[in-house]
Formats: sequence, structure tokens, C-alpha cells
Amino acid sequence: MKKIRTGPKTLLYPMPAFLVGADVDGKPNFMTAAWSGIACSTPPMLTVALQHHRYTLKGMQQNGVFSINVPSADLLRETDYCGLFSGDKVDKVAACGFKIFYGVLKTAPMIEQCPLNLECKVMHTLYLGSHALLVALIKEVHVSEECLSNGEPDVGKINPLIYVTGAEKAYYGYGERLAAA
Amino acid sequence: MKKIRTGPKTLLYPMPAFLVGADVDGKPNFMTAAWSGIACSTPPMLTVALQHHRYTLKGMQQNGVFSINVPSADLLRETDYCGLFSGDKVDKVAACGFKIFYGVLKTAPMIEQCPLNLECKVMHTLYLGSHALLVALIKEVHVSEECLSNGEPDVGKINPLIYVTGAEKAYYGYGERLAAA
Repeated sequence: MKKIRTGPKTLLYPMPAFLVGADVDGKPNFMTAAWSGIACSTPPMLTVALQHHRYTLKGMQQNGVFSINVPSADLLRETDYCGLFSGDKVDKVAACGFKIFYGVLKTAPMIEQCPLNLECKVMHTLYLGSHALLVALIKEVHVSEECLSNGEPDVGKINPLIYVTGAEKAYYGYGERLAAA
Repeated sequence: MKKIRTGPKTLLYPMPAFLVGADVDGKPNFMTAAWSGIACSTPPMLTVALQHHRYTLKGMQQNGVFSINVPSADLLRETDYCGLFSGDKVDKVAACGFKIFYGVLKTAPMIEQCPLNLECKVMHTLYLGSHALLVALIKEVHVSEECLSNGEPDVGKINPLIYVTGAEKAYYGYGERLAAA
């Protein structure tokens, strides 16, 4: 099996496609992102990486909190839109018709239409090259009631988007369940 | 749309399922993991989180380098196996019949059968609760030649596994391409 070197690239499959939310100057804003991963199980923590100039990052740093909102595949259009425009130019909440709610952290705005919402509190920030890497505690998780099965979040009902990086850059849906892990 | 609070949990979809590789006391070892995300685009960086007691982590710290090996769905059995046993008890390379190769970092062992391999150099380590979070530069990427289309890695040919966390814990395959991103 011959191997080809591509040079250093951010090639890892799959990546989640989600909306990062923060109040910027007191007003909720959301941006589409895919650079996130789990950082710790106990306590639950995750990372999210955003370019330094991002309007949403400004709000995350103002409040020290943010949200991760996982859209279902039927929010593909809104997800794509929130990655194309900056919140300092357009009101993305109004443009997308998002209904906003707040939880335990008070200043981390969440999107009701997204079936899965995580409230996060920033613990560490690493300033890397093009991106700031935020390491955050997951303080609460909200799931839309109709996406539960036997009281547990059901990925089949959440129907999240997959982001594929590389030369192609595309959104994919979930495939078939192969085996228990 | 009523929301249910689940309490803080590491619920983010999808997560990659991959094999982390390191030479431990000079011998290649691999463990299955899913806690990884991209940390920076320029230069390319990623995070990986492992529990402190992991045998593979010992090797990553001995050498300051490691590999991420993305299996295709037809390596499901081997992927699952490498998450069940520790390298201080069994020789997982022999048990799985992995063919090993090394690249630019010299001491980051990679699995030839995995269609995508990333060589990584540790830049930062954060000691969080249950996990050590390693932030690493991606120094080189290797792709199996038959998984390229027009000279670029093709996710359809790589056919990676998706790890689903939560109460269910399962491996999924890729679904359909929905739209360009």
C-alpha cells in the first residue's frame, strides 16, 4: 500500500459542524466552526479554536463563557450562512430566525432550534498561529426533548452534520450504525 | 421546542475514531481514542486527550512525538481491539497484523493499513482532570495512494469511522454528501 505525503495539513475525519455562540457587547452572535474536540472526561471539557479576529471570539473573551450549538442536517442552510458573514456586519440571529435562550451561565446564548446545546466556561486560552485555542469546562448540556430515546440523547434523532475538511470541504450526514463501541 | 438538561457531559457529535501511535520504550504501540480536534490552521495543529495512566501516553512523553492513524470502516475490529487492551499487557501490533512505517519524525510509528496518518510533535501539555491534553504540530500527512482522487485525499475512499459518544457509544459510517461548505 503506497503512501503519498501531502505536507502538513489539518486532515482529520470527521469533524463536527456547529455554531459557537457568545454575547458580543451584550448582543447574541453565532459563528459556524468545526475545530473542536473533547479535552477531558472528568470534569467534562472541550476545546474550540477560532481565528483571532473573529467577532464571536471578542464576546467569548468579554464574558469568559460561550455555547456550542449542534445543528441537525435540516439547519444546513443556516449553518452555512453563519460561516459566511461576520456579526459586526449582519444580525445573524434575525437573519436566521433563531430563537435564543440562556442557561446556568446566564451570558452564553443558545439556539433553541439546534437539538444539542453546550454551555461552556473558558479555563485556558492558548494563542497559537492563526487561531486562539480555548479550553473550556462544559457546565451544562441541553437537548431538545424530541431528540431523546429512553431519556438519553439519540444521535439518530439529533441527526448532526459532519464537516469534511481538505480540498473538498463539504457537509455530510450520518451513515449507518456499524457496531457498539 | 422543550429542552431537557442532562447535566455536564462530553456530548459533541461527531467525533473521529482513530489510533494514537507512539514508541514506548522503543517499541510501537497504538491505542484507540476519539478525543481529538483541530487546534490551529496555520501552522496545522491538533489536540489529543488521553487518560494520564495510558501506556501510549508514556511513549508520547518519552519521544515528544506521536501519530494519529485514521482507520477505514473495514478496520473496525482492529480499532475496537486496540481500545480494549493495554500495550503493557499485549503486543497490539502483532495481534492486529499492523505493518509499521516511520516518517519525518523518525520515532512516530504509523500503521500502513490505515489510509490516513498524521505525524505530530507535542508543543504544549495541559494536565486537566482525568486527561492530559496534548497540543501538537502536524508535521506531515501520509495518505494511501488508492484513497486519492485528482491527487487529493478523498473521504469517500478513506471511508473513516465515526465515534458516537453518550449513553449509546457506537461506531458509525459516513453518510451522504449534503452540500459544499
